[in-house]
Amino acid sequence: MNLGKVVGMVVATRKESSMDGLRFMLVRHLDEQGKETGGQVVAADAVGAGPGEVVLVASGSSARQTQATDKRPCDAVIMAIVDSWDVGGAVKYRKSEDE
Amino acid sequence: MNLGKVVGMVVATRKESSMDGLRFMLVRHLDEQGKETGGQVVAADAVGAGPGEVVLVASGSSARQTQATDKRPCDAVIMAIVDSWDVGGAVKYRKSEDE
Amino acid sequence: MNLGKVVGMVVATRKESSMDGLRFMLVRHLDEQGKETGGQVVAADAVGAGPGEVVLVASGSSARQTQATDKRPCDAVIMAIVDSWDVGGAVKYRKSEDE
Amino acid sequence: MNLGKVVGMVVATRKESSMDGLRFMLVRHLDEQGKETGGQVVAADAVGAGPGEVVLVASGSSARQTQATDKRPCDAVIMAIVDSWDVGGAVKYRKSEDE
Amino acid sequence: MNLGKVVGMVVATRKESSMDGLRFMLVRHLDEQGKETGGQVVAADAVGAGPGEVVLVASGSSARQTQATDKRPCDAVIMAIVDSWDVGGAVKYRKSEDE
Repeated sequence: MNLGKVVGMVVATRKESSMDGLRFMLVRHLDEQGKETGGQVVAADAVGAGPGEVVLVASGSSARQTQATDKRPCDAVIMAIVDSWDVGGAVKYRKSEDE
Repeated sequence: MNLGKVVGMVVATRKESSMDGLRFMLVRHLDEQGKETGGQVVAADAVGAGPGEVVLVASGSSARQTQATDKRPCDAVIMAIVDSWDVGGAVKYRKSEDE
Repeated sequence: MNLGKVVGMVVATRKESSMDGLRFMLVRHLDEQGKETGGQVVAADAVGAGPGEVVLVASGSSARQTQATDKRPCDAVIMAIVDSWDVGGAVKYRKSEDE
Repeated sequence: MNLGKVVGMVVATRKESSMDGLRFMLVRHLDEQGKETGGQVVAADAVGAGPGEVVLVASGSSARQTQATDKRPCDAVIMAIVDSWDVGGAVKYRKSEDE
Repeated sequence: MNLGKVVGMVVATRKESSMDGLRFMLVRHLDEQGKETGGQVVAADAVGAGPGEVVLVASGSSARQTQATDKRPCDAVIMAIVDSWDVGGAVKYRKSEDE
């Protein structure tokens, strides 16, 4: 999985019908320090992630292993909202209480 | 999924027979600002996308999860036509009314 | 799928037995202008492609969706021979009549 | 598979329910000399790997071929802890006895 | 598939039990000229490849389409030992007789 930050949403009314009801979030990749890498992906949302949230994105066929995305033409899914992570024991990111 | 722009079409009469009837579109990758990244992919069209349209492309096995591409040797599919997207609340792309 | 040009063939007599009878072609990646990108891949041939021909290559699990490659350890397949393609209405490649 | 070093852990309480009980480890990629390449991945842990351990990570659909990750939206898994490796007969890494 | 050269072996006693008996080879990627590209992968061996041999590596789910790797968390497999290849009719690599 990759770390990412939700920065926007993509609207598409004309689409493969199986994708109806899925939200397409624009997610910027983050490195282990929490810095944006310059890359991004459009991922379906399986966990109710909102703008600004730090998330985990699963790609490829694994992106279809959620109830929301099963058997759909979806190659990236937000499958977790990150609370925190550490590197070498030092906290690199912690979600603020009021988010 | 990746953002892309349809810029052309690939014609191939001699091909795996299961691919008959599929249109192969040449799609340039776009970043979150709508700028072309320099990369491109040839994607099957599952939604009737035309030249100039901004689309979402699903890759890998997920590209086979449409009626048009099921069980076919197809690793990229246009599965949505993009109306708009935003980054941080600012609209970065909006399809014009007369398209 | 990616555009490519067949430039050679790889011979391997000692291999997974399910690969017997498959031809392994060396394919250089082409960009949308028809220029070589510097990358290459070894792809199984499902359509009788020969040296010099411009082809489409499908990768990943989709490379197994042909009769020739089904259930085989093959991650890239030539599944079409390209006649032509255009970008913005301008023809970028057209197979010559005498090929 | 790729060589990697476990450097941290990602905590996510809100996630796809099938992921409950899985630990998400932050793994830095290593090259064949054991040097960090600058890349990293978040991988589920199938073998009880701890911080500082050198591991093998399998990606894509293969990451779901463990009891811990079967049918889950998981695209990277730690499936082995490395004892040692050599290049050209020269040992490049050996796990210390007291680890 | 990608061309590669076996340069070493990775030893891992603690691993997903389904991987028992598989050998993990360290394989450097080769380009079409036979030059090392700087990249490498750890691949399971399905054909009895040894150090110094030039091989083909299949990646992703296709890496599980051998008897040795079926249903295992393995994303790269050596599925052929290369005898020779040519580019534009010129032999770029030929296995020596005494190997």
